[in-house]
Amino acid sequence: MPAPLIVVNFKAYGEVCGPRGLELALSCQAVSEDTGVHVIPCPQMVDLARVCARLSIPVWAQRVDGVGPGGHTGHTTAAALAGAGAAGTLLNHSECRMRAFDIDAALSSCRAEGITTCVCSNNVPVSRAMAALGPDYVAVEPPELIGGDISVTTADPSIVSETVDAVRATNPSVGVLCGAGVKDGKDVSAALELGAQGVLLASGVVKARDPAAVLRDMASTL
Amino acid sequence: MPAPLIVVNFKAYGEVCGPRGLELALSCQAVSEDTGVHVIPCPQMVDLARVCARLSIPVWAQRVDGVGPGGHTGHTTAAALAGAGAAGTLLNHSECRMRAFDIDAALSSCRAEGITTCVCSNNVPVSRAMAALGPDYVAVEPPELIGGDISVTTADPSIVSETVDAVRATNPSVGVLCGAGVKDGKDVSAALELGAQGVLLASGVVKARDPAAVLRDMASTL
Amino acid sequence: MPAPLIVVNFKAYGEVCGPRGLELALSCQAVSEDTGVHVIPCPQMVDLARVCARLSIPVWAQRVDGVGPGGHTGHTTAAALAGAGAAGTLLNHSECRMRAFDIDAALSSCRAEGITTCVCSNNVPVSRAMAALGPDYVAVEPPELIGGDISVTTADPSIVSETVDAVRATNPSVGVLCGAGVKDGKDVSAALELGAQGVLLASGVVKARDPAAVLRDMASTL
Amino acid sequence: MPAPLIVVNFKAYGEVCGPRGLELALSCQAVSEDTGVHVIPCPQMVDLARVCARLSIPVWAQRVDGVGPGGHTGHTTAAALAGAGAAGTLLNHSECRMRAFDIDAALSSCRAEGITTCVCSNNVPVSRAMAALGPDYVAVEPPELIGGDISVTTADPSIVSETVDAVRATNPSVGVLCGAGVKDGKDVSAALELGAQGVLLASGVVKARDPAAVLRDMASTL
Repeated sequence: MPAPLIVVNFKAYGEVCGPRGLELALSCQAVSEDTGVHVIPCPQMVDLARVCARLSIPVWAQRVDGVGPGGHTGHTTAAALAGAGAAGTLLNHSECRMRAFDIDAALSSCRAEGITTCVCSNNVPVSRAMAALGPDYVAVEPPELIGGDISVTTADPSIVSETVDAVRATNPSVGVLCGAGVKDGKDVSAALELGAQGVLLASGVVKARDPAAVLRDMASTL
Repeated sequence: MPAPLIVVNFKAYGEVCGPRGLELALSCQAVSEDTGVHVIPCPQMVDLARVCARLSIPVWAQRVDGVGPGGHTGHTTAAALAGAGAAGTLLNHSECRMRAFDIDAALSSCRAEGITTCVCSNNVPVSRAMAALGPDYVAVEPPELIGGDISVTTADPSIVSETVDAVRATNPSVGVLCGAGVKDGKDVSAALELGAQGVLLASGVVKARDPAAVLRDMASTL
Repeated sequence: MPAPLIVVNFKAYGEVCGPRGLELALSCQAVSEDTGVHVIPCPQMVDLARVCARLSIPVWAQRVDGVGPGGHTGHTTAAALAGAGAAGTLLNHSECRMRAFDIDAALSSCRAEGITTCVCSNNVPVSRAMAALGPDYVAVEPPELIGGDISVTTADPSIVSETVDAVRATNPSVGVLCGAGVKDGKDVSAALELGAQGVLLASGVVKARDPAAVLRDMASTL
Repeated sequence: MPAPLIVVNFKAYGEVCGPRGLELALSCQAVSEDTGVHVIPCPQMVDLARVCARLSIPVWAQRVDGVGPGGHTGHTTAAALAGAGAAGTLLNHSECRMRAFDIDAALSSCRAEGITTCVCSNNVPVSRAMAALGPDYVAVEPPELIGGDISVTTADPSIVSETVDAVRATNPSVGVLCGAGVKDGKDVSAALELGAQGVLLASGVVKARDPAAVLRDMASTL
């Protein structure tokens, strides 16, 4: 997928439970189509199939578990993501940390199902380790900046550039996203200048009064 | 909900990824409407909103997490279940074991959202403890019989009757379901005779050649 | 064990790594012997056998896992606690939350090994559920008060008295402890007046300049 | 530490609860001193300080948690390992799987405390990822062979040689151990020929009638 990517993580925010989840996903699609910038919604897990059925742009899940099809009540397999129509998934978000063995197992299953993978990381060494597992993207987010008001690109630009270097040295086919505190087009531009292929964001859009306007502003400056 | 209940847990079986999940849910609804027995589908999490939008009978989730709305990537809140249109949820299945604190937190959230709750248990003491937390149902399933060919009502009938007694003594407003190895109408009848309000089943239906026929057979004997 | 109990949880505090862990345990013993009040040290897991070998009073562990002897690297069984000479153990502390199934399994193993059990709880419903599992003690601690300066007996006395009532109604052979913010003899007396058999404390002693003096002050007022 | 290493994981086996844990550790030391081969005992966590106090050879823990000193009941910090006198630790064993973020945090703490680290892995990609985190050793063990009768060096030699290559390419300062089914000196020799610096073993020694004889046989062939 050509850069830049704007990945919108709906998290478990109350603002997007029910029909508003689909509305935000449709806003992502509208901005994506109008601007040519890839805006990828990650709706809540319960909404995944419903959102995918309504959208023509790629939709990502918020998680995938490290198990294959079988007797695994409550778990989401790569096959289930594919069956729901998802194009990709986040894994190992700071709020949904996975065991190393399970990340590897989930990545293998996603590869077999053609699901794009974006493994989250909290620092440069973990970014390097995750790149060694061969996902499509590594998204680095310092946990202390997640949900805050200061963008990682302002507060800690070196974590982005060092992750770009580390990931490139480990596995050049892996892309890098960055996140935490990303709120406007300037933050996205800064991320791209630091070598990232895009951003991962959440509250800055999901909790905004007018999410579509925020997305449109972001995309328009790229 | 008046007894008997037949709760069909789709688990992460590959047989019901994609459109076949909705098909099985529609079969549950057809049998439910034809026979007057409550057949409740628990589709995979990614399918929940899609299935609820298409069905008019109650649909349950396979899990709910012990967190409220907020920054909890990949987690499913009671509010998300309600938003998706689910009427209830399983919790703490043997394949999706929860921490005691989280079960309590999830039950509180579900009560606030009007979501019916069915907490799974593996033996009589855990059934008693779960009843003390005040769910709508406790479903007892000996883990070693789950997915097998011998029904709990044959292999270990006393775990059902003792759970019924223990739950009634602890909290008489809590119903009891039983599960593990339940495959036909005879097993369901045996469960009701042991004092249960219904059964929880999975592979016996999901992996059957003709799931609707199995469900119809079960319901017709009640 | 006759009331009152003062259970001292060493947690993972740096103050008691290495020989200072044994020193604090010896202080607990000295105060216990001088005052006749049961002061029970819970040293760090790595110190358990060393501390038990040196003390003649009961020593408790900070955790036990829900597995039996076998291939379970890094896990601590009830048999290991008994082999180390421990008389009891905490389980399910707010900082070490356990799955409901594992709490039950661990309690069964501890009973078989003659290990006294104290299951932690965060509120009245969880206290009731834990009492239903039949431990020797339930210790209720509101998580938001743990490690703070205000004692649970001041900030939330009703959680203590309601837990005492709920536990007595559920299983009268289960004792109740309370904890969080307990710092001096007045707090301990208040706990006993609210119906508890003792207290669970940590930072108030472990991080004190003179832990033995704090313990002696507590015990002397009882 | 110069090769070859024979790391003996006591796991939670009942055979080494209580004084027999110290006895096996002393056997490791006797063989180590007699043969010059590094035999490293990993006693149960509760025995760690007791065993370290009695031995003069390096002793490793079975686990370390990804938290620093503080209010973390039941957790074992790198500082606690150092305080107990441990020289090193296993991490992320197949029976004690860790989240990727916690492995990284634990490795950082161990480096700061001078604790040697051996991260377990289940396959080549995970070995590569773990090497990227910079431990002292990666120990590769196919989970399906753990506790069995056929040595990894016979059943799956390529996983050893490929891990050696992958780890060397990722971070040449990281050593490689291998394990699963290792039972005698021939298996250890085979591991060294495949490029490993040593082996990780458990049941083959711990459950043997005469563990010291098994260790002596292993070490004598090197």
